Amino acid sequence: MSQKLLNTINYPSDLRKLPTTDLPSVAKELRKFIIDVVATKEGHLGASLGVIELTIALHYCFNTPEDLLVWDVGHQAYGHKILTGRKDIFDTNRQLGGISGFPKRSESNFDTFGVGHSSTSISAALGMAIASKLQGKNKHHIAVIGDASIASGMAFEALNHAGDTNANLLVILNDNAIGIDPSVGALKDYLTRIKSSRSDIEQHNIFEALNFDYSGPIDGHNFEELIRELERLKKVEGPKFLHVITTKGKGLRQAEENQVKYHAPGKFDKVSGDVLPKEKSSFTKFQDVFGKTIVELARENDKIVGITPAMLTGSSLKFMLDEFPERTFDVGIAEQHAVTLAAGMVAEGLVPYCNIYSTFLQRAYDQVIHDVALQNLPVIFCLDRAGLVGQDGATHHGAFDIAFLRCIPNLIVFAPRNEIELRNILYTAQLGLENPIAIRYPRGKGRLKNWQVPFEKIEIGKGSILKEGADLAVLSIGTIANNVTDALSSLENTNGIAHYDLRFVEPLDQELVLSIFKKFNKIITIEDGTVNGGFGSAILEFAHQQKYKGDIHVLGIPHEFIHHGTTDELQKECGIDSDSIKSCIEKLR
Amino acid sequence: MSQKLLNTINYPSDLRKLPTTDLPSVAKELRKFIIDVVATKEGHLGASLGVIELTIALHYCFNTPEDLLVWDVGHQAYGHKILTGRKDIFDTNRQLGGISGFPKRSESNFDTFGVGHSSTSISAALGMAIASKLQGKNKHHIAVIGDASIASGMAFEALNHAGDTNANLLVILNDNAIGIDPSVGALKDYLTRIKSSRSDIEQHNIFEALNFDYSGPIDGHNFEELIRELERLKKVEGPKFLHVITTKGKGLRQAEENQVKYHAPGKFDKVSGDVLPKEKSSFTKFQDVFGKTIVELARENDKIVGITPAMLTGSSLKFMLDEFPERTFDVGIAEQHAVTLAAGMVAEGLVPYCNIYSTFLQRAYDQVIHDVALQNLPVIFCLDRAGLVGQDGATHHGAFDIAFLRCIPNLIVFAPRNEIELRNILYTAQLGLENPIAIRYPRGKGRLKNWQVPFEKIEIGKGSILKEGADLAVLSIGTIANNVTDALSSLENTNGIAHYDLRFVEPLDQELVLSIFKKFNKIITIEDGTVNGGFGSAILEFAHQQKYKGDIHVLGIPHEFIHHGTTDELQKECGIDSDSIKSCIEKLR
Repeated sequence: MSQKLLNTINYPSDLRKLPTTDLPSVAKELRKFIIDVVATKEGHLGASLGVIELTIALHYCFNTPEDLLVWDVGHQAYGHKILTGRKDIFDTNRQLGGISGFPKRSESNFDTFGVGHSSTSISAALGMAIASKLQGKNKHHIAVIGDASIASGMAFEALNHAGDTNANLLVILNDNAIGIDPSVGALKDYLTRIKSSRSDIEQHNIFEALNFDYSGPIDGHNFEELIRELERLKKVEGPKFLHVITTKGKGLRQAEENQVKYHAPGKFDKVSGDVLPKEKSSFTKFQDVFGKTIVELARENDKIVGITPAMLTGSSLKFMLDEFPERTFDVGIAEQHAVTLAAGMVAEGLVPYCNIYSTFLQRAYDQVIHDVALQNLPVIFCLDRAGLVGQDGATHHGAFDIAFLRCIPNLIVFAPRNEIELRNILYTAQLGLENPIAIRYPRGKGRLKNWQVPFEKIEIGKGSILKEGADLAVLSIGTIANNVTDALSSLENTNGIAHYDLRFVEPLDQELVLSIFKKFNKIITIEDGTVNGGFGSAILEFAHQQKYKGDIHVLGIPHEFIHHGTTDELQKECGIDSDSIKSCIEKLR
Repeated sequence: MSQKLLNTINYPSDLRKLPTTDLPSVAKELRKFIIDVVATKEGHLGASLGVIELTIALHYCFNTPEDLLVWDVGHQAYGHKILTGRKDIFDTNRQLGGISGFPKRSESNFDTFGVGHSSTSISAALGMAIASKLQGKNKHHIAVIGDASIASGMAFEALNHAGDTNANLLVILNDNAIGIDPSVGALKDYLTRIKSSRSDIEQHNIFEALNFDYSGPIDGHNFEELIRELERLKKVEGPKFLHVITTKGKGLRQAEENQVKYHAPGKFDKVSGDVLPKEKSSFTKFQDVFGKTIVELARENDKIVGITPAMLTGSSLKFMLDEFPERTFDVGIAEQHAVTLAAGMVAEGLVPYCNIYSTFLQRAYDQVIHDVALQNLPVIFCLDRAGLVGQDGATHHGAFDIAFLRCIPNLIVFAPRNEIELRNILYTAQLGLENPIAIRYPRGKGRLKNWQVPFEKIEIGKGSILKEGADLAVLSIGTIANNVTDALSSLENTNGIAHYDLRFVEPLDQELVLSIFKKFNKIITIEDGTVNGGFGSAILEFAHQQKYKGDIHVLGIPHEFIHHGTTDELQKECGIDSDSIKSCIEKLR
């Protein structure tokens, strides 16, 4: 198929020159364009395929970028990017120096608000709508939000406020009954009931209760319905709510049939749609180490439960769901609730493992402090995707967790160096901890072939020595230890260079660190977290208490937001790859 | 009136021995008991008076503490405390060493979950209910939540999850149409409509939509209705929702008529109910410096808007509401929304001052990172109640903000030393900052009589010297500078002791600090924030970068949760009062 029409469209203004009868062809071409590129370059597929018609209709009916369009999360914004000046660079998506996988203000004035985390769009669009009104600007403000994202508390807060204003705000619910995993919760059931029996609850649905002018549900793949309704809504004053039904992965059979897998399928055959076989690997993702281990532990300890806020597949808690459905809780995109739910469970005797990506734990920071740590309830936080996450970029790096967690009293902060350490701390945590614990581990695979070894208890607050030496000590935390090991093995002479894995940021192994202070005049600390207030900073604090007068060199993620690229590329940029460590050692020794 | 019945009640088991006909008299006595004590000892009055009948009915009908009762926020739990073993120590409420103003697990097994921040009760009670079910325990789990708290996103997340379970959970909505200030938002309007025309929306209210078995609204001051309904609900399976209408301040005329003032009225005449005149003071609360200054600025700059999540009175943003209602936004207990709303407003050209208590900003941590700082949108955060807040205790101290904010790239972190500095930074912030800024200032009054002086622009990133010296330098941040000044004035000889106010934690005034490093071998840093990762830690980081070899002594809030007491008492305990600073100086000089 040619890209005859798409070739003529660089911006929405081009699109608007076409007759509506051409739009189905544009949709076809756009869909093919996305499939072709993502098939080889990888990325988030299903969400964008599902909103092709909606994307075209929005840019067709509204005067973007003058009218302001906010995409929630942004997985679905590929079509939007291609239609707004980025068709020719779309194949750089998610690559170092290329365009972001999410809408990003600095990339285009069509990207009105940067996203990545969910459920922010209504708040942002409402802020814009209020700003327009106060400044006498006559604009439309549109938030497009999925049914998984709208169930998050933040979205409710925004609806609750918006419904009490006369802001020119259109909230479009892109209802495909799935986020990354199938949507959950009472609201989702309710939306299903709305769809199946609209007449029944005609007058009093939830959105109308919140003062929105509700319309729908309409077919989100039908241009006629979409355009008629969008044109009508342009003339309606105040907060409006349009319920659109779409199919995630629309237009690619496999993506429609296997929506979880095709959320971000990796490389696939663009003709058949089949996912290409991945390179065989003898190594295991850390998420699977978590998923497999919690199942092992849950078999022996019936107090164990697993909680995830909408990351069932991504965290591999799915393994536990398969075996222990009644003890596994996907609470939807509800990090705040997930954490306090876990606290309530501990209060009544359970042992909850609450698995939240590092970057998403930011959403539940108060709950960690106020509901868990203050009451010293031993919730076990499993922070997947800690450190640099690669192509998802700035919104998703788990760069701040050490800094924002180590200031919380009572909370143990641990980072496993490898799969066995992760496995053993998961084991240790359910033996009866007296404190809550945060276990941070990275995205991606480990380096051990055989990690399913018998469990061993880890002593809380104890670090370990990986290599002896007498001149310079490298102190690492977590899997970044691998880079240190690589750096050491690339040096011609490693005599005198010691390597310690501190393991615990809190409580710090003061005995071990004191012995290091006594022995070494030169210390390097390294972490895959921010240098402002992180692990290195904890060592500095202790050094000053002990009046240590040697040199301490802190390596970590610099005090800036890190963009996207492969993790290797980004580690290099941050100066925490093995080459940088090697240089640092050579300079100091 | 005697306390004839109340004298016989030490625990709910005593209460349950009484015939229901005695309960109105118990209510009368309990109300009087609370009024008598709070009249002289101060505390939160209105909320507890409003739930006297509900409290008695709950402990009468349910088998507490076996059945688990969770109070949201906890302002309303005085009656609960008095009926559960703490009658004789109730007059120690909120005092150092006395009972907490909020439910607290360590205080009583009737306090099933510690609270202070809002909207946690449903999550916690659901966690307990799921835990009971999994362990085969046949218990009731009850969350009592106000209409202001239930509008917060976290409560919605919990309802959405609970409605999808078969947990034995009873959510009681204590609907009095007010939090600290009158409730806001579309949900509040909706609840008003339910109350006025129940029949109209009989079949499809929001809570029923979320799968709750809804009943009510009933009169929360009528024992007959309460007991009949609670007894009925004990037999209903799954998630249940009881809508109870109460009057905040019930039983004290003035408290009913002036609910905002009588939320926490200070000392009052227990017979007349009149609030006693406060001691005259020539000094101004920092919140009023904010409130008055933003009004001044808003008169000149029509881009300025003010946002508060439900702290209109407490933040004194009320002053702006009175003069610029259309530019002042109380969004309800919705910190997450408040922050991203502000970000959206900046994106469309406004200058929002987002006023959030330090402890409550924890609720919007991700939004500060992801929606504001990452996009470098210059939202102006005004963090009232930073540092130790006194009697509200552990849940309310603003102890962590410096640590959790200074790791966020792009964000300016400033703490004014006095009212004039607060005034001037508020002025500076609206002149066109290139970055977002967090301005932290404490609860309570300043020390200046005349602070309403002409505005002066503050240079971003510049500290100042308050006293010259050559032997020892004290580096302070914020109003704790006063304690340093007091310490210095209490020393016989202050020669050689310098005092610097750094003003900015981020960006640090590196030029100034370098000059300090060059001049001094001994440095004391002091802050009213945690020592783990705080301001002192920032100085240590820079010291190591500069290979400074002098001694740095870090004073601040220790790495533990600080209980309640007066701010003076707590500063002493933390070693940041003037005496402690004096000792520290004497030891080091």
